[in-house]
Amino acid sequence: MSVCEKKLLELGLELPPPPAAAGAYVPFVRAGRLLFLSGTLPLEGGKVAFTGKISPDEAGLRRGYAAARLCALNTLANIKVALGALDNVACVVSVGGFVNGVDAFADSPRIINGASELFLAVFGDAGRHARTAVSVNGLPLDASVEIAVVVEARD
Amino acid sequence: MSVCEKKLLELGLELPPPPAAAGAYVPFVRAGRLLFLSGTLPLEGGKVAFTGKISPDEAGLRRGYAAARLCALNTLANIKVALGALDNVACVVSVGGFVNGVDAFADSPRIINGASELFLAVFGDAGRHARTAVSVNGLPLDASVEIAVVVEARD
Amino acid sequence: MSVCEKKLLELGLELPPPPAAAGAYVPFVRAGRLLFLSGTLPLEGGKVAFTGKISPDEAGLRRGYAAARLCALNTLANIKVALGALDNVACVVSVGGFVNGVDAFADSPRIINGASELFLAVFGDAGRHARTAVSVNGLPLDASVEIAVVVEARD
Repeated sequence: MSVCEKKLLELGLELPPPPAAAGAYVPFVRAGRLLFLSGTLPLEGGKVAFTGKISPDEAGLRRGYAAARLCALNTLANIKVALGALDNVACVVSVGGFVNGVDAFADSPRIINGASELFLAVFGDAGRHARTAVSVNGLPLDASVEIAVVVEARD
Repeated sequence: MSVCEKKLLELGLELPPPPAAAGAYVPFVRAGRLLFLSGTLPLEGGKVAFTGKISPDEAGLRRGYAAARLCALNTLANIKVALGALDNVACVVSVGGFVNGVDAFADSPRIINGASELFLAVFGDAGRHARTAVSVNGLPLDASVEIAVVVEARD
Repeated sequence: MSVCEKKLLELGLELPPPPAAAGAYVPFVRAGRLLFLSGTLPLEGGKVAFTGKISPDEAGLRRGYAAARLCALNTLANIKVALGALDNVACVVSVGGFVNGVDAFADSPRIINGASELFLAVFGDAGRHARTAVSVNGLPLDASVEIAVVVEARD
């Protein structure tokens, strides 16, 4: 078992089946050493596990954080398919985080930390990434969070 | 005539004049083999042909799909200028799709399929791309859809 | 003093301290010659200097333009840390501009010009970039503008 997959196990996590594309696209495209991953939703058992608007109260922030973490887990499943093993990630390059927030939602960083902290836990220093977090007025299938990731592959 | 341009012709489509930038930027920048294209709007005859919010009823979804397809056609016009011919695209890498949706709009994948399916029709397997689709609360010139594309060029 | 830094001085601008990350991420990641920068906010003296929704009246547009320019200045501070000197930028590749706009805000290009025009002033032709501008319903710390930039470094 690879180092990254051991870390997932230690965290009590298991990779879900790689998510199917929700339209006329594919889960990832590689160009040179860069792997561009499609936006992933917080899927569990093939269904969106967190739907609806995120509000800035504590319950909303916790729900949003958990949703972002689940998005990241689905992205990891795609990375494994793309590269054969998570250990073939040289580094996580960038994370674009979209929160389905109520109007004027200002806490997208706290939500997207759910994804960022999972990447750090799994990849260690190689999980340190550039990031952009915004709130938007709607996401596919009414998901609460979506993340779009670029990673660099080892040679 | 190139293979891709023949496919456009078969679809009854013609490349529009490449869209002018709507601000202090340029339509594309190439870095190595990656070509980063500016966001394009659904322009026809130099004007935005689809404006205003997309709602989730059938008429709205059809209008949004047509708008996304027209965005893609404008992106193709930029690609041709950048690379000399559409056949110089090695692959479409990523599509970022932004829908000017009513609040909580959940159908952005169906809208952005209008762009994705045009890329697949024109480029075949090379048109398969990673994608992110979100709804936002406003787009330039009140356009209904905007797409931002990255392609990989042949050597 | 480098050429780009002389231009900043001529503009009466000074690089701020590079902004701290607002979450579990880092300000930039380099992959090959591409430098991916995290989204930056309009920070001044460690605080967000422009907060709240941008409306389409003249005062709003002026405020948004100034906010975008300040975002770009913060991005420049990160670029200097990443590459040692601004003159090590081969070109600005892409700018993603997010405006915290009122619903249906249609003037994001005029706002994001605040960032684009600063890059052009500092880098000259190397500052010409691809761009996407959208309005979103909320930004981190209630900032009025956020920009996410990719630059290409010299060898």
